[in-house]
Amino acid sequence: MTMTPETILTPEAARAYELDRRHVFHSWSAQAALTPTVITAAEGCYVWDGAGNRLLDFSSMLVNTNIGHQHPKVIAAIAEQAAKLCTVAPQFANDARSEAARLIAERTPGDLDTIFFTNGGADAVEHAIRMARLHTGRYKVLSRYRSYHGGTETAVNVTGDPRRWPNDHGNTGTVHFFGPFLYRSEFDAETEAQETDRALAHLARTIEMEGPSTIAAIVLESVPGTAGIMVPTTEYLAGVRELCDTHGIVFIADEVMAGFGRTGKWFAIENFGVIPDLITFAKGVNSGYVPLGGVAISAAIAATFADRVYPGGLTYSGHPLAAAAAVATINAMTEERIVENAAEIGERVLGPGLRELAQRHPSIGEVRGLGVFWAVELVRDRATREPLAPYGGTSPAMNELVAACRARGLLPFVNFNRLHVVPPCVITEAEAKEGLAILDRALIVADAHTTS
Amino acid sequence: MTMTPETILTPEAARAYELDRRHVFHSWSAQAALTPTVITAAEGCYVWDGAGNRLLDFSSMLVNTNIGHQHPKVIAAIAEQAAKLCTVAPQFANDARSEAARLIAERTPGDLDTIFFTNGGADAVEHAIRMARLHTGRYKVLSRYRSYHGGTETAVNVTGDPRRWPNDHGNTGTVHFFGPFLYRSEFDAETEAQETDRALAHLARTIEMEGPSTIAAIVLESVPGTAGIMVPTTEYLAGVRELCDTHGIVFIADEVMAGFGRTGKWFAIENFGVIPDLITFAKGVNSGYVPLGGVAISAAIAATFADRVYPGGLTYSGHPLAAAAAVATINAMTEERIVENAAEIGERVLGPGLRELAQRHPSIGEVRGLGVFWAVELVRDRATREPLAPYGGTSPAMNELVAACRARGLLPFVNFNRLHVVPPCVITEAEAKEGLAILDRALIVADAHTTS
Repeated sequence: MTMTPETILTPEAARAYELDRRHVFHSWSAQAALTPTVITAAEGCYVWDGAGNRLLDFSSMLVNTNIGHQHPKVIAAIAEQAAKLCTVAPQFANDARSEAARLIAERTPGDLDTIFFTNGGADAVEHAIRMARLHTGRYKVLSRYRSYHGGTETAVNVTGDPRRWPNDHGNTGTVHFFGPFLYRSEFDAETEAQETDRALAHLARTIEMEGPSTIAAIVLESVPGTAGIMVPTTEYLAGVRELCDTHGIVFIADEVMAGFGRTGKWFAIENFGVIPDLITFAKGVNSGYVPLGGVAISAAIAATFADRVYPGGLTYSGHPLAAAAAVATINAMTEERIVENAAEIGERVLGPGLRELAQRHPSIGEVRGLGVFWAVELVRDRATREPLAPYGGTSPAMNELVAACRARGLLPFVNFNRLHVVPPCVITEAEAKEGLAILDRALIVADAHTTS
Repeated sequence: MTMTPETILTPEAARAYELDRRHVFHSWSAQAALTPTVITAAEGCYVWDGAGNRLLDFSSMLVNTNIGHQHPKVIAAIAEQAAKLCTVAPQFANDARSEAARLIAERTPGDLDTIFFTNGGADAVEHAIRMARLHTGRYKVLSRYRSYHGGTETAVNVTGDPRRWPNDHGNTGTVHFFGPFLYRSEFDAETEAQETDRALAHLARTIEMEGPSTIAAIVLESVPGTAGIMVPTTEYLAGVRELCDTHGIVFIADEVMAGFGRTGKWFAIENFGVIPDLITFAKGVNSGYVPLGGVAISAAIAATFADRVYPGGLTYSGHPLAAAAAVATINAMTEERIVENAAEIGERVLGPGLRELAQRHPSIGEVRGLGVFWAVELVRDRATREPLAPYGGTSPAMNELVAACRARGLLPFVNFNRLHVVPPCVITEAEAKEGLAILDRALIVADAHTTS
């Protein structure tokens, strides 16, 4: 038995923990002080830690298990494909890859019907940017502050959050602008209409100042995820589309987090009726059961590489096991109406429930989202909107809130001063209400840090 | 039934082919002219195409299926882990990940006992370079011409082959030097000792001219793979290690292709008794059955990130399904002495067999390699060493050679003017001899293109 800060572990979990601390290097962390929770099992919307505690997963891990944990149809498909054919090189054709591409193309908007498969979201963004650069013959890429696009060098440099800073050497041809975010408006706007107009004018001016002929792409999360789930207006995204059309700029919609049901649509961009030129995806495409990402490519951009070599690739592009997991995931999501469930739960349970919490908890400054994609903005003071943790940091208040959730059996997703409510798309009304009830009690510790 | 250039496909394969041509975007290719072979099944050292033809896989796909296709122990482990727990987020601990890290650390040389898991080789190289940059506080990375390090932006820019060119905007802080390659010596050397001495002097001068204090890392494939399997001398790699020590430069050994048994050792660098600071791996770690890569980190570099945040990560870092496949692969390779088999087959069968072919086929300019990692350098003229295809290109002669191999039931690996003999590490003597016999006949078409 090993003591971690919270629990007494089973011998198996204790060994996993000890080997982890001896040999595993973790993402985005200083390694010495880590005390990672051991996860030993999962099912649907629940996971179990190394002490046998059941936790309601309001994080979907890293917002990727859209179909829930251990969906039996996907598990079966993985076992079946493993027994048939695990891997082929990317230059061959394979039935699992072909069918995954067909199912994805069937769901993408417009003529984004050609699929380049990658291993995850970061390399999807890398390759989308490369396609845009070669298609336009231009180099610069515009993206917004308050965004996340991945961890490899190009992807982290289009990212607009502090994780970029230690990787930013000013040489990747990326320029950041401010997107619409009424609650913390950069434009002194007081209404969504003002915010949209001014954010579009700001983007238009940024393009003008940077030089339209130098800009290959604008990459935007259709709904920014980790950065705060700031749902844009239809007019904003339509305006971005128009600016791209005017200036011959490729519009890359990053749907790594927002895609595959998260917003109650297959792709988040469908909520706004806008058709981008490239869509990057990962996570929800097969719920991360097997690493997979990709780029859905418009007919015009695919045509650029009809007779010209696309200078990019990877050994596992269109990996059969990952593709088979995607096929099973997409089919199960369709048959079981999981995307529709995400929309309904958002509209009937999570939205109203979170807004009701906001009325009673002074620490909640704003609630925003759709589907199973919600942000709760936590503040010290509703009037000043002072965040409960600084941008790029954490605070005792936020740590206490996480601990209070965990102690009550909820696994939350937090970033800076925000708590995101991002459970699997399969969540039931009862499970959603169970989570909201835990949040109701946990938020008392956040309220204690308010000054109002 | 569908006609491809070579075969009549089964209805299932025809559908895979047609959907592929409609929806799949392939790596490193112009898309319009592609006629990809459908792969429908595989076992051990064989694969089956869409017309039911069995092919001896002398390519290991992309030199990744070291344990052979569809190894039953790895298949079983994937099914078992899938049923238990497919995925957890990287901030947690998990028994499959911990055990994979332990088994890898047990096999790495020196104190490279901390493992950062990625999805593949390219992001392993990206993160290794980032670690080196932050560890040294320097930016520049040196790598050799005739090398391959991956497809994402930083990885493809340290790459020293033509795939870099369309991605090279001169802004990634990479500098290339010439490595040892006696057959096409850059240094007018006539012996291996001269080549080693002069290549080391060239590297030392390059460091001096670039400024030692500006160089974060030297990244080298321990044995360069796709670029030509130029086995270095022990003295060369010892000299690189010494230059790195003298100047405080991080030595990154890229073992994505050469690692996990390919050269008859767990890591290729063991052949030379040299200990690098970081090792990148992928492919053979689990034979690519599930996408996985990583970086093995020295104690000194791990210490840099003990109390300082490592600014990098990815959703699938240490993915349980990928890790479980690595555990099963490494255990099976150990129990079944698969690494030892690769060494023996190289020494007893492939090496002597290829050298014997070289005596009889005038198109063979040189044979070089070790383990199951061999290059056959094809030339028009042995005296002038004029290659059978130009650097960066192909030729009718090479295309005919590939067709001749395929027609006789062999799946070859070719690059420019080289044919690589890179079968799975499990290959038997009989299978190796079967492949050599096919090459013997196929090489007649190459011989017809010689001028000598």
